[in-house]
Amino acid sequence: MPVNEDLRRERARATFDVKQLTHMLDGGSDRTARRRQLQAIIERDPTGIFSNDDNAYLHRTDRHVRGLAKHVRMVELCRTLGIGDKYDGQVVMDPDFPVLLAALADDLPTALHWIMFVPNIVSLCDEEQQRAWLPLCRDWKMIGCYAQTELGHGSNVRALETTATFVSEDQDGTKGGSFVINSPTITSAKFWPGTLGRTANHAMVIARLIDGHGKDQGMHNFLVPLRSMKDHKLLPGVKSGDIGPKIGYNVMDNGFAQFDNVKIPRRNMAMRFAHVDERGRYSKKSVSAAASKISYITMMQVRAHICNEAGKNLAVACTIVTRYSALRRQGYASDGESELQILDYKQQQHRVFPLIAASYCFFFTGKRVMEQLKDIEDKLVSNKSISKAAVTDIHASSSALKSFTTTVAADGIEDCRKACGGHGFLQCSGLPELITTYLQSPTVEGDNQMLPQQVVKVLLKLVQTVQDDGDLSDYVSCDSYGLISSLQSNLKGVKEDCRIVSEIDVMNLDALLAALCHRSARLLVGVASQIQGSISSGKSYQEAWNDALVEMARVSRAYSQFLLLRNFMEGIDGEERSGAIGVAEVTVLQNLARLFALYWMEKELGDFLEDGYVTADHSRWVRSAVLQLLDCIRTDAVSLVDARDFSDFKLKSALGRYDGDVYPAILKAALRDPLNHSDPGPGYEQHLKRLIAGGTGTYKATVSRL
Amino acid sequence: MPVNEDLRRERARATFDVKQLTHMLDGGSDRTARRRQLQAIIERDPTGIFSNDDNAYLHRTDRHVRGLAKHVRMVELCRTLGIGDKYDGQVVMDPDFPVLLAALADDLPTALHWIMFVPNIVSLCDEEQQRAWLPLCRDWKMIGCYAQTELGHGSNVRALETTATFVSEDQDGTKGGSFVINSPTITSAKFWPGTLGRTANHAMVIARLIDGHGKDQGMHNFLVPLRSMKDHKLLPGVKSGDIGPKIGYNVMDNGFAQFDNVKIPRRNMAMRFAHVDERGRYSKKSVSAAASKISYITMMQVRAHICNEAGKNLAVACTIVTRYSALRRQGYASDGESELQILDYKQQQHRVFPLIAASYCFFFTGKRVMEQLKDIEDKLVSNKSISKAAVTDIHASSSALKSFTTTVAADGIEDCRKACGGHGFLQCSGLPELITTYLQSPTVEGDNQMLPQQVVKVLLKLVQTVQDDGDLSDYVSCDSYGLISSLQSNLKGVKEDCRIVSEIDVMNLDALLAALCHRSARLLVGVASQIQGSISSGKSYQEAWNDALVEMARVSRAYSQFLLLRNFMEGIDGEERSGAIGVAEVTVLQNLARLFALYWMEKELGDFLEDGYVTADHSRWVRSAVLQLLDCIRTDAVSLVDARDFSDFKLKSALGRYDGDVYPAILKAALRDPLNHSDPGPGYEQHLKRLIAGGTGTYKATVSRL
Repeated sequence: MPVNEDLRRERARATFDVKQLTHMLDGGSDRTARRRQLQAIIERDPTGIFSNDDNAYLHRTDRHVRGLAKHVRMVELCRTLGIGDKYDGQVVMDPDFPVLLAALADDLPTALHWIMFVPNIVSLCDEEQQRAWLPLCRDWKMIGCYAQTELGHGSNVRALETTATFVSEDQDGTKGGSFVINSPTITSAKFWPGTLGRTANHAMVIARLIDGHGKDQGMHNFLVPLRSMKDHKLLPGVKSGDIGPKIGYNVMDNGFAQFDNVKIPRRNMAMRFAHVDERGRYSKKSVSAAASKISYITMMQVRAHICNEAGKNLAVACTIVTRYSALRRQGYASDGESELQILDYKQQQHRVFPLIAASYCFFFTGKRVMEQLKDIEDKLVSNKSISKAAVTDIHASSSALKSFTTTVAADGIEDCRKACGGHGFLQCSGLPELITTYLQSPTVEGDNQMLPQQVVKVLLKLVQTVQDDGDLSDYVSCDSYGLISSLQSNLKGVKEDCRIVSEIDVMNLDALLAALCHRSARLLVGVASQIQGSISSGKSYQEAWNDALVEMARVSRAYSQFLLLRNFMEGIDGEERSGAIGVAEVTVLQNLARLFALYWMEKELGDFLEDGYVTADHSRWVRSAVLQLLDCIRTDAVSLVDARDFSDFKLKSALGRYDGDVYPAILKAALRDPLNHSDPGPGYEQHLKRLIAGGTGTYKATVSRL
Repeated sequence: MPVNEDLRRERARATFDVKQLTHMLDGGSDRTARRRQLQAIIERDPTGIFSNDDNAYLHRTDRHVRGLAKHVRMVELCRTLGIGDKYDGQVVMDPDFPVLLAALADDLPTALHWIMFVPNIVSLCDEEQQRAWLPLCRDWKMIGCYAQTELGHGSNVRALETTATFVSEDQDGTKGGSFVINSPTITSAKFWPGTLGRTANHAMVIARLIDGHGKDQGMHNFLVPLRSMKDHKLLPGVKSGDIGPKIGYNVMDNGFAQFDNVKIPRRNMAMRFAHVDERGRYSKKSVSAAASKISYITMMQVRAHICNEAGKNLAVACTIVTRYSALRRQGYASDGESELQILDYKQQQHRVFPLIAASYCFFFTGKRVMEQLKDIEDKLVSNKSISKAAVTDIHASSSALKSFTTTVAADGIEDCRKACGGHGFLQCSGLPELITTYLQSPTVEGDNQMLPQQVVKVLLKLVQTVQDDGDLSDYVSCDSYGLISSLQSNLKGVKEDCRIVSEIDVMNLDALLAALCHRSARLLVGVASQIQGSISSGKSYQEAWNDALVEMARVSRAYSQFLLLRNFMEGIDGEERSGAIGVAEVTVLQNLARLFALYWMEKELGDFLEDGYVTADHSRWVRSAVLQLLDCIRTDAVSLVDARDFSDFKLKSALGRYDGDVYPAILKAALRDPLNHSDPGPGYEQHLKRLIAGGTGTYKATVSRL
């Protein structure tokens, strides 16, 4: 296909090999090839069911139904292709499955079944339960969701109100005991679970277990049938439905459910770690350390995945805005005749290029956290010891990273949308649905505003250990280890010198990392002493903690930036050592790493100036280095987004097309709107005509008077 | 109605009189009464046509048609009530009209008719044209739009491609000359004008005038009939329709139009300031200074309006999040039993209260800019002289203010949405439509990324004048006048001392204003010298300008904050002097002004630390003062949003209800979704059943193979 001349020229001048970065991002050239093969299956599917062309024009109901159709087609394709998790006693994940799903470039209403429901069975149910349920899940006879949050209760699990009460033998003669599920109040209605509304026939319900002695045994999981597997009708006592339209993610039927004396068999309680016998006696089960940590590791994996997804979603937005800005022209060049490429404006570069840098940065961190988790898992399985510090530390870093990367991605995608000017407001730009659907990420899996407390809670223990000259050996392999010497200096009041001594040093990645490390340590020590100070001045611990929340957010952000830069630098080194990329690729990635660090330093310069770590000279250097890096990256900008290798099918954007043929695509999209399917448009005959042509219309108006 | 206990308690402890602030915001108690009267007419209209309950559940087409129905009903109400602009030779605006429209709490597809089309006729057409067209506009026989932007051309008017070519006498024998309108390329399609898509039957088209001698006379306005006034069908040669769904504002039919030799009478060219005679000869008309400035003043008025609207939209979001945060509880109080009000968390206060402050702040600035414009207009009409500085200065300040206030409002509304947690993602929270529709504001009427150049362009002239020791008398009544002494110090290298000397001074509004002023002046001088430096080092003016764009954004932001704080302080003084508010109200407003200033100082502390104007001590004081102010404002938070007096009809929010009865409202809203209108839901029979119950479904699947 003929490609827009501007884009062709941009691509011709790349300083690096685009293919190499693509392979690096995919994890090898073989994975790239397989991904493309799977994409082709979706994009060229002869049923046409996977087309996204009409998405923006469908009523929500039709969009959801279309999602169900896609699901069924997907399952059939997987069966034909032999793709899918294998189960024989143990679940083996099929790496092709997520690739195929990603190729859809659309959401499926069934997503929570395999994201949450099946993993929950795997981690919390005993072997007999798994043998009974997993084959039904694999065959999509049982479609499940994970029902934790309630209308009045979000992340505070302790406050959940749904109850599961043991009853030993019932009027109907059920033997072996049962649980009765109840929603005692309006606020206890299960609310938000994805797939619950209209799709799932089962829910893994988190409820307060009341045992046979009437004793509250806290929260446990119960498999509750919602709908008949014969006709998909709601079962007696279950009131459930969709929670209504949202700002985005509307293919998904997030749902609500209220339970009125719904009786389930005793063995529907997830019994891997706890047990209730036929007489209603509750007991905990002793399990291996590995088993008990598995659900925790799963949660951490979800966070690493979120970090990686933040990078990917941001990269989609960057691809659209970068290509469009390369061909869109506005304002005159010095010759007074030709219009300038938007991509040549410094404020556009300053807006977009740091986001390209962030999208690569998040890739390396996602990969690294996954490797760390794999390492912990391997150790657990082989019964090697893991320090408590290592486990809490990865909790802190994953909390910080989840919060920071999803904030940057959500703000960044929206900024890319704005950076497309008016046309970014159009659904056909692909950006509106991208951002509105992504907007869930800052809120789910730990609200970004709440996570900093978890980060600081863990890091304060490190501060305490350093302060007490305690044993630090546990921290050697931890993410926060790099902070220790900075913490020591800060606690002892020893001034740390900035390693940027002359203007040239400002491009030195090690010096930048040291600056980010210093800032994290300083702010962390600051929070510790703020809390101490508040308590000394007579405030309760809770008040002191509350007063420090604003600062905790700063600490968490600073700590994330430190981790992200370090992982970026080490990631580049690793890829270079493994031979995955060459000198040219290393150079361009290092410039992105520099821009990542310097952009955030520039933005939050006060944090570095406040204690004199950097000076007015440094500030000038930082700003000037940012401008220099923008110039460097300008050359490769289009190729850097091309390297993500997103197909046009995936981008769904008239503005981000590979061939740059933007304007006909916009007009073509406009004509699809049902508003344009008649002339005059709908509403004229019934309404407008009444005024314009003096017709009478069809509705009777009664007039109020003042 | 019974009110939630938490909200009742919040309201009981207000330190000020809510009514007084309401009257102040309305412009007097009589205006409050009238607003409520007009709101009641809309909210209790017996046709039910104005209900917004179904908005989120309608397909876009139905939503648009519903908008047309509302329009017709509105017009009929206005006729009955005698509300509407009066025209006899001169247009007299009816202040009730915008109030009635605001009461709808919904958009109308006809909005651009009275926002842009009619004012355009008034300012650019001659008296005969006005006499012919305005009565038709008033009666809504002629429905118009303003067609400037083109598919390939946004704010760069010079690049527009649509042509209007004079023809003297045509084959069909038309006497008196005509213009032929053409869209020569795909990029020249008119694109974006609101009301153009399906509603308008006329467009004021901006096109390049080619006169009778084939000479290009630049851009002029032409009234082009689009649709027949008999049957609303497109006229020959006109291709037009809706541009398709957008991220928000979907009631509106933003449209496109392509012209293929569309002939209009010569007198359809707007001829107040220019003229083409029957022989195609072009001439400019001499007019009074007042007349020539009118369209300019109109543009400025639109910007002042945008500033005020930024405050109002932000206030809607603040109302919702503040009320909901007062009754939503999460996490445990020190007693370990009762859950805490979200509004008691410091990070929630830090997120929301500065936005409440900003919403009041923007009100005072909107009001002040309107007064300034009125003053200029009065002087023009009475032929008093106005300095050129005064006119360009208000251009600079209104550009800076438009950019800053709409950025703060857009980011702030979205942040309020996030601050509602998961439920803020629901359409029934009212926040999704509020934000997605508001998102147009940072882009329209001057893209917020482009405006800083206009600000700096003007302010650099002031710098030059100061540097040259030029005549500054012209600036005495200007917005930027306050900067002059700071500029003098900065240019002479004289150090300005921070007026915050001890911790107590950090609450001194004059000292805070001085700090914001100093920063603006310093950054402005910095940009001037950066540009100078670049040119000295051999760069072209254009390159130097481009390199400075990032810094210009900083200058523009700094300048806005300075103006906003000054207008806030002067506004409070003015209201106090006039007796509109008492001591208690002044106190609470001044705390909001302090928080506004200190919040931004805290956020952008680097700007103040960089040149040593503030120190580490100051930074600590600033942070601690922010926390203190959050405590102060906490007491009045609910009452401060109550004072906006938004009705539940206006808020359209299950979370922001006055009575706080949130949870039943959410469940009730969910049940409205058409997805819930059958059991099982749509899509089961045709799709899901195939897998679950082993049914066969209805579509044939053909399977691809790898």
